[in-house]
Amino acid sequence: MKKAEITFDPRQGLSERILRGDVFADACPSREILRHVTSRWGVLVLVALLAGTHRFSQLRRKIGGVSEKMLAQTLDWLEGDGLVLRVSQPVVPPHVEYTLTPLGEEVARRMEDLTDWIEANLPRVLEGRGAAVVATD
Amino acid sequence: MKKAEITFDPRQGLSERILRGDVFADACPSREILRHVTSRWGVLVLVALLAGTHRFSQLRRKIGGVSEKMLAQTLDWLEGDGLVLRVSQPVVPPHVEYTLTPLGEEVARRMEDLTDWIEANLPRVLEGRGAAVVATD
Repeated sequence: MKKAEITFDPRQGLSERILRGDVFADACPSREILRHVTSRWGVLVLVALLAGTHRFSQLRRKIGGVSEKMLAQTLDWLEGDGLVLRVSQPVVPPHVEYTLTPLGEEVARRMEDLTDWIEANLPRVLEGRGAAVVATD
Repeated sequence: MKKAEITFDPRQGLSERILRGDVFADACPSREILRHVTSRWGVLVLVALLAGTHRFSQLRRKIGGVSEKMLAQTLDWLEGDGLVLRVSQPVVPPHVEYTLTPLGEEVARRMEDLTDWIEANLPRVLEGRGAAVVATD
């Protein structure tokens, strides 16, 4: 977790100039990536796409509670970060498919570790809280 | 990622009645835990506390950009979920310390995997974006 180190030697590529991000630094661009992948729907989109390519409507059905607008916004963020690939299929009627890029798959595996942990440990968390049982379906 | 299975046999404890959460289900209580641990400051509080016990003011200094109000709110959520322990030290002047619980440490390790990945792969993401270089300190 070193500070991002930036020099301005024009002979170097971007990846040589920024050695590493620092999520604890307010202005580090890693903060924006973190916000996108940990956003309310970003986590679920990434994990859903680990199962393979999805159409927009399939993602929307899979992710309970997401609105059309928020799903589109989230997919735009993830596409902008190079984590999700958007492919328009030249068919009639036309449709759009979303797939993880290799970079997206790397981060999605980490989000799946997290959601798996939360799903498996939910009883422990709720016991700790002494919360009332809430039916989920 | 099975659906949470809930029966109401009063002889069973909570952890036997809820077998597993399902983050894709809108009403599953795992969604709230996911929101807390992936909240803007929740991720950073968990990762910061992996280094050991911190006072409020130490956390605030470490996490660039967090307001007093948002840090307090985030610590309340994580304490409520049993992930962070709040200990008031009976000293003069009084102060409060925060530590990860064993449950909190498990989830914090996963958040650290994620932030480490983002910090290490920031150059690849920015290259993909073709974004301008942004100085971070």
